[in-house]
Amino acid sequence: MDMQPMVELWRGGRLESQHAGHAVIWGEGGMVEAWGNPAAIIYPRSSCKMIQALPLVESGAADAAGLSDRHLALSCASHEGAALHVEATGRWLAGLGLSESDLRCGAHEPYDRDERLRLIRAEEKPCQLHNNCSGKHCGFLTMTRHMKADPEYVELDHPLQRAIRQVTEEVCQETVAGHGIDGCSAPNFATSLAGLARAMQSFAAARDTGDARQRAMARLRDAMATHPEMVAGEGRACTELMRAMGGRVAIKTGAEAVFVAMIPEQRLGLALKIADGGTRASEAAVVALLVRLGVLEAGHPMAQKRLPGVQRNWRGLETGELRLATGFA
Amino acid sequence: MDMQPMVELWRGGRLESQHAGHAVIWGEGGMVEAWGNPAAIIYPRSSCKMIQALPLVESGAADAAGLSDRHLALSCASHEGAALHVEATGRWLAGLGLSESDLRCGAHEPYDRDERLRLIRAEEKPCQLHNNCSGKHCGFLTMTRHMKADPEYVELDHPLQRAIRQVTEEVCQETVAGHGIDGCSAPNFATSLAGLARAMQSFAAARDTGDARQRAMARLRDAMATHPEMVAGEGRACTELMRAMGGRVAIKTGAEAVFVAMIPEQRLGLALKIADGGTRASEAAVVALLVRLGVLEAGHPMAQKRLPGVQRNWRGLETGELRLATGFA
Repeated sequence: MDMQPMVELWRGGRLESQHAGHAVIWGEGGMVEAWGNPAAIIYPRSSCKMIQALPLVESGAADAAGLSDRHLALSCASHEGAALHVEATGRWLAGLGLSESDLRCGAHEPYDRDERLRLIRAEEKPCQLHNNCSGKHCGFLTMTRHMKADPEYVELDHPLQRAIRQVTEEVCQETVAGHGIDGCSAPNFATSLAGLARAMQSFAAARDTGDARQRAMARLRDAMATHPEMVAGEGRACTELMRAMGGRVAIKTGAEAVFVAMIPEQRLGLALKIADGGTRASEAAVVALLVRLGVLEAGHPMAQKRLPGVQRNWRGLETGELRLATGFA
Repeated sequence: MDMQPMVELWRGGRLESQHAGHAVIWGEGGMVEAWGNPAAIIYPRSSCKMIQALPLVESGAADAAGLSDRHLALSCASHEGAALHVEATGRWLAGLGLSESDLRCGAHEPYDRDERLRLIRAEEKPCQLHNNCSGKHCGFLTMTRHMKADPEYVELDHPLQRAIRQVTEEVCQETVAGHGIDGCSAPNFATSLAGLARAMQSFAAARDTGDARQRAMARLRDAMATHPEMVAGEGRACTELMRAMGGRVAIKTGAEAVFVAMIPEQRLGLALKIADGGTRASEAAVVALLVRLGVLEAGHPMAQKRLPGVQRNWRGLETGELRLATGFA
């Protein structure tokens, strides 16, 4: 099946640019709705961090290390390297008797403006704690220590990565279609979009009174929804939209325009991918779907910020308009 | 006709994201080659700044104001607001007896890192001179003064904008299909991709011994090709690629993934648009076409930087690969 046009940029009454992709909503009884091709194989990238964190919680490693929900939210985060994220990951590593140099995510400039300016003014270089994936890697190191495994935890045949592959197949209910290497050096397992939506449905429906898997899923989902500041950061879509939904829904973005959502009150999972990797479109599309499902108020300023609508230039003049494509959401 | 897949991102042996669009190469005898739909109507955005500067040169206003080729390159620029651009536009305005507040482009943070850091350290705000379009607007003000026209030079019915509309129709050899408002508040006239390529062919073939139109075209084209540092800035595609081609070719990017090229030695014009507005794809596509036409060496570091190829992460690991799609270039 073809891609579904989803988000369009209009200017002067004319279509200027367009984004197409795939989206799936999965419910208790199976697929509820889909646009584009639900069987499309994608790399979930950072959108599957809650799946990658499942072994950490389910195995008891998180409890053994005394991790709080704030840590767990950070283990699912693509954070912006703000002071709170850097401090939290630094303290987490110290608690494990490890340090920044044990991370294998690499260093990049923080997305957080204040921290970026602080580094510039102090003439300091960014470190691995600033990497948006450092929380996930702290989780990986916690689990690696728990498993008494080799410290090179991002290798494909490392017991942790094998466990992640297995749990991915279990929650997506399909064999993974291969793997790529993510920006943070960890393997990223390819899934169908339907499989990823199915996994999100399991997270949405998981009960904290269920079996170990269910309890781990519910705990990670709720940790994300109740600590949105740890999952991304000020000004970022995941943080602002989870706040706007008041902890009712957990959502997560991934590189190359992936977005997922877990909606416990409706036991629904959602996954979408914009084929060209354009983030402006994946954010507009997920907001449109969350509004459509009735869990995000269209009028909320954080929804308004990303919902299709008028775009203005530096002088406040109306220049273009982001619109949903006909036939989508 | 449909869009042509042009640039793909592969990861772990699998297609992760893809960009499609339209491209046209125009020669003396007409269309030489096309991908996608040559009749697609697009907004050229900043890729048509040399067309917008034509009235300035052709009318004699540029000479009357004593503008150098460096000024003319700046009038066609989407510059990064580095010190040299800010100084040059500031002096240009002073020479006209005008100031920064006469500009109508709006202020935004400069793309140039050094100037951005300087502003941060000095706790200064960016001004309109930092706007990437400030050179074009200095040209607009020069022409406005020459015409003794109203100072509100970005209004659609301003004599300058009427002149730009007319010259756009003449060089594209078609009626403009409407207009949008650009990020810098100026009208941007919609053209077909073929029309834009045709215009670029006229610029490519223009002789400095021809009529006033031809001389103006040749002068703007050569000003761009010989002052690439004024057209964009350090690290930017237009500057680095024009340097790599040693002044033989003039190229210009536009927002939402437009790129044009004027190739005098082959009397060829080129225009392309990536439908989703993704700049990584428009840069890779124009480099691939310039290499194919034999005017850019594939092995040149500035071409290598943008040519499809292996992508590495923060730790230097191979993660993905940007590739040209089958059937393109």
